[in-house]
Amino acid sequence: MTQELQRFFNENEQGILEEILLHRRDVRGNHFKKDIISEENIDRILQAGLSAPSVGFSQPWEFVLIHNEETKEAVRATFQKENEKAVHQFSDVKKQEYIKLKLEGITEAPLNMAVFYKPKKEPVLGQTSMPNMGKYSVVCAIQNMWLMARSLNIGMGWVSILDPEQVKQILNAPSENQLIGYLCFGYTDMFYNKPELELKKWDYKKLQEEVVIQEKYT
Amino acid sequence: MTQELQRFFNENEQGILEEILLHRRDVRGNHFKKDIISEENIDRILQAGLSAPSVGFSQPWEFVLIHNEETKEAVRATFQKENEKAVHQFSDVKKQEYIKLKLEGITEAPLNMAVFYKPKKEPVLGQTSMPNMGKYSVVCAIQNMWLMARSLNIGMGWVSILDPEQVKQILNAPSENQLIGYLCFGYTDMFYNKPELELKKWDYKKLQEEVVIQEKYT
Repeated sequence: MTQELQRFFNENEQGILEEILLHRRDVRGNHFKKDIISEENIDRILQAGLSAPSVGFSQPWEFVLIHNEETKEAVRATFQKENEKAVHQFSDVKKQEYIKLKLEGITEAPLNMAVFYKPKKEPVLGQTSMPNMGKYSVVCAIQNMWLMARSLNIGMGWVSILDPEQVKQILNAPSENQLIGYLCFGYTDMFYNKPELELKKWDYKKLQEEVVIQEKYT
Repeated sequence: MTQELQRFFNENEQGILEEILLHRRDVRGNHFKKDIISEENIDRILQAGLSAPSVGFSQPWEFVLIHNEETKEAVRATFQKENEKAVHQFSDVKKQEYIKLKLEGITEAPLNMAVFYKPKKEPVLGQTSMPNMGKYSVVCAIQNMWLMARSLNIGMGWVSILDPEQVKQILNAPSENQLIGYLCFGYTDMFYNKPELELKKWDYKKLQEEVVIQEKYT
């Protein structure tokens, strides 16, 4: 491999990546528009997922593209049920904030995507000591798609208040598949300039010095 | 929020993100250079991590920056032990390929980083039905850092052939912390133009149609 083949990124390109990282948001149903996402853009989002790193190059992912309204309604019903259970877990103060939040955009988003981890029967290079690595590879694919979508000015929301087994049943998924993420994609009327839960003071933004440790814990 | 505050990304910027995604590689010790990574660049990488999405804005991450050679040697020893156990799990043909691969760059990389998931005692919004969501948030931070590093022309390798409990012990980590990724960062003499395990024919690159399902499984 010669030096000419190396891609060297410059200051301007680094700045563009930083802007995409900073402007990526979790988008919910109150901001999705109905406009269809073109096949070309769906392909660009999927290709971003397929270029993610995977442990031992196992690429242990499957992506189910969902446009069907009945499927979305069925998934939304499991959200509803799980969300009702969830709210009771929070303290009284938090509960009042919680119920005001719109936490998904399943039926409002023109495109839903269920992303599965498909375990392999054979051992996977790099996964022998840390069995979760395959699932983490799938998460890397989701994050790549999230960033690609944002660069295409398409919002994405990750819905995790769901019973994964119910979603598998709705999608007729093979029993060995494990749901990692249920994603909603669509154009938006706006993107918040900060995380919505930061703006709504659900929690504060941590500073770098709070989460960075030098060399080892004391 | 007015329309003026919205960041609209253009075709050129979308293309730059795609190039960063496509040129990101897992870098191992045979390609790391000794050159120090500046504080400024370490900060840019960490800030990319801190701008990752997190479930319920929980930001459940801690990042340990490791320059110390003794610490690296100790981590490398757990790699060695786990790797010797791992090789026996593969078939005879794969075993011969496996032992030829350089699978980490712990001591060669000027900077190592252990990334932990720190569970919260209180319930976390969005994590009530899918308890792994906090760990997945940490993976999103790792993927953001990986991409930021690549844009800075810095290589990163994710080492997963490790005993996570050993690493915690070496770093004196709190018992509730869970190791998600052990990362090696450094400048490189080259980046492969495709995943190394693809070039070395460990496995083939999956096509989009192999992993994309329309609407539901049949």
